[in-house]
Amino acid sequence: MNIEMIRAANARLDGHVRRTPLLSSPFLDEIAGRRVWIKPECLQHTGSFKFRGGWSAVSGLDPEARARGVIAFSSGNHAQGVALAARRHGVRAIIVMPSDAPQTKIDNTRALGAEVVLFDRAKDDRNAICARLSGEHGLTLIVPYDNALVIAGQGTCGLEIAEQAASEGITQADVIVCCGGGGFASGIALALEADAPGLRVRTAEPEEFDDMARSLVSGRIERNSRLSGSLCDAIITPQPGELTFPIVSRLAGPGLVVSEDEALHAVALAFSRLKLVTEPGGAVALAAALFRAEEIEGEDVIVTISGGNVDPDVFRLALDRFGS
Amino acid sequence: MNIEMIRAANARLDGHVRRTPLLSSPFLDEIAGRRVWIKPECLQHTGSFKFRGGWSAVSGLDPEARARGVIAFSSGNHAQGVALAARRHGVRAIIVMPSDAPQTKIDNTRALGAEVVLFDRAKDDRNAICARLSGEHGLTLIVPYDNALVIAGQGTCGLEIAEQAASEGITQADVIVCCGGGGFASGIALALEADAPGLRVRTAEPEEFDDMARSLVSGRIERNSRLSGSLCDAIITPQPGELTFPIVSRLAGPGLVVSEDEALHAVALAFSRLKLVTEPGGAVALAAALFRAEEIEGEDVIVTISGGNVDPDVFRLALDRFGS
Repeated sequence: MNIEMIRAANARLDGHVRRTPLLSSPFLDEIAGRRVWIKPECLQHTGSFKFRGGWSAVSGLDPEARARGVIAFSSGNHAQGVALAARRHGVRAIIVMPSDAPQTKIDNTRALGAEVVLFDRAKDDRNAICARLSGEHGLTLIVPYDNALVIAGQGTCGLEIAEQAASEGITQADVIVCCGGGGFASGIALALEADAPGLRVRTAEPEEFDDMARSLVSGRIERNSRLSGSLCDAIITPQPGELTFPIVSRLAGPGLVVSEDEALHAVALAFSRLKLVTEPGGAVALAAALFRAEEIEGEDVIVTISGGNVDPDVFRLALDRFGS
Repeated sequence: MNIEMIRAANARLDGHVRRTPLLSSPFLDEIAGRRVWIKPECLQHTGSFKFRGGWSAVSGLDPEARARGVIAFSSGNHAQGVALAARRHGVRAIIVMPSDAPQTKIDNTRALGAEVVLFDRAKDDRNAICARLSGEHGLTLIVPYDNALVIAGQGTCGLEIAEQAASEGITQADVIVCCGGGGFASGIALALEADAPGLRVRTAEPEEFDDMARSLVSGRIERNSRLSGSLCDAIITPQPGELTFPIVSRLAGPGLVVSEDEALHAVALAFSRLKLVTEPGGAVALAAALFRAEEIEGEDVIVTISGGNVDPDVFRLALDRFGS
């Protein structure tokens, strides 16, 4: 895994990925006590940065493998990213989803052209289903973060951040990245190491699901004690990846952790101050910039918003609690 | 009023205005039956395109007049656009606002550095207050649309649309513009006439406040019968401007009119499909593209979202009615 793979992914994504802008608001600067710059990947195709990794993985396959199609498991953003990338390449995609996933996510994944195979979390073995389908149909499995092509795709967002920061005159800053398995954080960290060495990745996670922050402290991969019950569902994973953790560990500063309420507050502020729809998991980096200011250094801070695929009920909850 | 004034405004705005992206969603394409391209000016500084006109007007004053400061009347987006433009130029801004304007808009305008003077709609004469304050302090009045510098600023959005459409390979399309007094529509129309003659402006308005559509039919300026009671408050004006109407009349196609419910439906779809926060008045062009498809020509349609300064209660209403 290296910067040349990210640059190659960037060439493959050119003309297909959306180059998201760098936003700001004087109201957020005031809360944070420094200038806050926002990279809104909720505006990316399919509503999250996952389209970058999906496109990178599908486009990076050798033509014969690609023609046979791809398979992925995901209940959310990765599913949609891979589905759209496959459809635009004109190849088959099977997405294995839990039968209790939100109906809208199942519907969206189907609408993006994927064949959805549902499984029962209690009874079925997801990996066995993927292995069987992959073998039967010759499909290539695209895992959500521990895959070099996927990490390279997510890293293209880091190349954009490096360029946009330079054009704003920012040479030193923390770049806070919403963190699940670490694909987004490790890709961005590698891109910044090469193109903007004064910018340093900081991961952001919700309380009780802070496996990356604890792993960064202990120096080895730590697990979460549970995997459900968070409004930040988009970034809940069992543990940092085997590929991603060494990169994040080498390049990132200490992990940041916010409460679920702080994530919801950030969702409400992104609504009123940025006019962006964010999901709670996608807003934890913004929450860290606003509510963990004392743990951050420098006059500027850059935050990623990783996604905006939020249920209306959860969005209403954020507005009810923090929207006035 | 000509294209050279728009190009001059564009040079003055360079480095200060946000160049908004051109977005799309396969889900919206499917509803509309053609490709829908979205120019989201809700992402502009202060949450609406009005910052363009505000900056153009303040930066276009001669230095002595600018140093004395500016005055504007507005209950919403123009107020914030002028306030921020004045603050960033380091000059005084007085904004005359009705005392029953939403408290958040008053607070925001103050927070952007303006002195807010409240008046009582029932008892006071807004124009007299502006004239008095302008005279006493030597302030230049910046009216919201019937001002060449303001129209030139709004037209810079049209220059961007022309460029972005060309890079997407779009040479023929209707460009639907949310329309109040016609500043946005006339500026964009002039820019497109020069830089993308295959693109044609269509105005969009809410039912019962369709003064521009009726004026385009009759060929002379028609008035609205009332000026309140619409959720599309941001684009409700008494009648098309004296400066703007001849331009729109010469260059635009027939006006499009949508219901308030259709505007709310578009707000909900911008939430789910674009991850954008829009105000109902800012979503009428999107509503027209989606729900008046039979009145539009061509394989592509471009829509502006004029603003996103929406009260949480109104946004909740859109999600309640159309968010699932």
